[in-house]
Amino acid sequence: MYKQRLFAPGPTPVPEETLLELARPMFHHRTGQYRKMLEQLTRDMQHIIQTEQEVYTMTGSGSAAMEAAVANLVGRGETMIAVRGGKFGERWSELGRAFGANVVDLDVDWSTAVTAEQIDEALKAHPDTVAVFIQHCETSTATACDVEAIAKVVAGTKACLVVDGITGVGALPYRMDAWGVDVTVVGSQKALMLPAGLAFIACSKKAWAKIEATASPTYYVNLKAYRKSQAKWDNPYTPANTMVRAALVSTAMIRAEGLETVWAETRRRAEAMRAAARALDLELFSKSPSDSVTAIRTPQGIDGEAVPKVMAEEFGVRIAGGQSQLKGKIVRFSHMGYTDAFDVLAAVGALEMALARLGATVEFGAGVAAAQKVLAQAQA
Amino acid sequence: MYKQRLFAPGPTPVPEETLLELARPMFHHRTGQYRKMLEQLTRDMQHIIQTEQEVYTMTGSGSAAMEAAVANLVGRGETMIAVRGGKFGERWSELGRAFGANVVDLDVDWSTAVTAEQIDEALKAHPDTVAVFIQHCETSTATACDVEAIAKVVAGTKACLVVDGITGVGALPYRMDAWGVDVTVVGSQKALMLPAGLAFIACSKKAWAKIEATASPTYYVNLKAYRKSQAKWDNPYTPANTMVRAALVSTAMIRAEGLETVWAETRRRAEAMRAAARALDLELFSKSPSDSVTAIRTPQGIDGEAVPKVMAEEFGVRIAGGQSQLKGKIVRFSHMGYTDAFDVLAAVGALEMALARLGATVEFGAGVAAAQKVLAQAQA
Repeated sequence: MYKQRLFAPGPTPVPEETLLELARPMFHHRTGQYRKMLEQLTRDMQHIIQTEQEVYTMTGSGSAAMEAAVANLVGRGETMIAVRGGKFGERWSELGRAFGANVVDLDVDWSTAVTAEQIDEALKAHPDTVAVFIQHCETSTATACDVEAIAKVVAGTKACLVVDGITGVGALPYRMDAWGVDVTVVGSQKALMLPAGLAFIACSKKAWAKIEATASPTYYVNLKAYRKSQAKWDNPYTPANTMVRAALVSTAMIRAEGLETVWAETRRRAEAMRAAARALDLELFSKSPSDSVTAIRTPQGIDGEAVPKVMAEEFGVRIAGGQSQLKGKIVRFSHMGYTDAFDVLAAVGALEMALARLGATVEFGAGVAAAQKVLAQAQA
Repeated sequence: MYKQRLFAPGPTPVPEETLLELARPMFHHRTGQYRKMLEQLTRDMQHIIQTEQEVYTMTGSGSAAMEAAVANLVGRGETMIAVRGGKFGERWSELGRAFGANVVDLDVDWSTAVTAEQIDEALKAHPDTVAVFIQHCETSTATACDVEAIAKVVAGTKACLVVDGITGVGALPYRMDAWGVDVTVVGSQKALMLPAGLAFIACSKKAWAKIEATASPTYYVNLKAYRKSQAKWDNPYTPANTMVRAALVSTAMIRAEGLETVWAETRRRAEAMRAAARALDLELFSKSPSDSVTAIRTPQGIDGEAVPKVMAEEFGVRIAGGQSQLKGKIVRFSHMGYTDAFDVLAAVGALEMALARLGATVEFGAGVAAAQKVLAQAQA
């Protein structure tokens, strides 16, 4: 018998205390009790996103908040830049097309991060751009970009910078207001240590000015409706109120640990994983590896799709494989959420054992020891 | 100390077994384990909606599925009829306007149900109508209409009939295919005995033909994307997979009890409530009262907004008041979901005690006894 261990980059493990909160009795949402919860969750999310702007809580996947960003900000026929460096960058592009935007695709190799220089060039080539859409961490490639540098470039233009922080916020250092990001989108099932089902969005004053000037076909994700309701600590549509109550348990844990400590611990887990990969002669996929998720190329001669399969079916360790063009070529390990240093050792140990099972030459413990060295230094 | 009792028309009480399922560990959604769950939930929802069409599960409030119906079915500038007999009828109208439809509002008095004749007249006056939007039960007025008769009228036209079954499906007799309904929309937090957070939608062949012919600005609620994913028992965007797992507990309970038995028991609870109101000389608000929720006019001389307040704050019994134009004029009791005959007695008893507390002349037990008589007959 093996325990079930979840290392996929979302959903991530949820603390037992949060899960137990989900088992508490139903309650009504048009009550002072709920309004206080929504206010507290908003305050916690403002801290986690590092913004003084309101954060709106939606019932939906992260993609619902992505749609809110595109549909509220970009009018029909207006120009937007979508950075396509992976599957979720493609989602920005698809969303823009679905809502009739003039989408400029800024394609970057799937193993590389978009740079501030590339954004600058694209904005100069398309000066009518109203918004630039990026991923802080592109989950499909485990690649993180320099949001702060990109924000500096975009700030000098009329365009708004929209950041998909779904695999970033709560894991990677992120300071929405200080960096000058205009819109941040977050999902519940990653670094926030919650099941899927809630999405969050925050907008700068610059973004709000554009939203107010834009007529767009939105209702369920209409940000003006959210703003109006939130003034009374209400949601425009029936909220997932037991999820909001449970979210407070996880956000309180993050605040108790300290947001910067959570960022630092996430980075250490990622460094340990990367050290393990090097020790095992495995190649990282990304040239700008994210600390929230690590992608490792599966070695030559090994069936790439078999690695996550063996780890899950034989050892109960659920990691993710590659998507689309990366199918069978990479394996991905999350470092987000309710996970610790010793979970990294389990993940590395299972990877070593799965590779050996599939015929690779593996020195058992080499990866684990390399990870331990990083983790032990962090404790010193 | 009073127990907390929930009689609002959504969210409704959730069985302990379902809540406990929500407390079980996270798991991954791109797995055979999840695909089997989604398939089973689809089968259960097909039974509950009484359709052989696919039922799609969305992460969101019922309003997300309402948006899906409007945005996928009605192209920009096309004519739709929105029956406005309450707050949720207004939502159909607002949704149509948000997506650029030519909305014909069919206004009916908030205490009355729209009739097949009224729909027939509206369709004859607007022969270019592509869809008619109704509520099976308008939650804000506790009024149910004759969906079967309306479907017969709409079936003879090119228009599709869209039914908001959020406060209907699983509570009121409903047979989508046999009646010829084209689109049914359901939310999780009412008769399905689940927290808010999932929405469901099913479409007839006639509706699918219209959806395929319609270009509409949708992404998150794009039904074609749901259909494509569901062919592999997948969701287009990260699903609330622990909610899907929990939903199976509640839908299995409904199937074990028998759908027709659930309908009959819901009706008996409503009949008992109505008998109690009559015995207490209280007037029903609706001229076509729904069996899923009962609206009672608050008596002359009593502060209408104080009734739900006293019941909640003094007795722990959470009912709903009136919304919009009905604020302070009615109180509403749900008969949906995880609730039984003896819960009705508690609700009626608390109503009697609250009215007395607020200065009304109440013969204690008169309402309770009238309810008991109905419930005892049902047992015989």
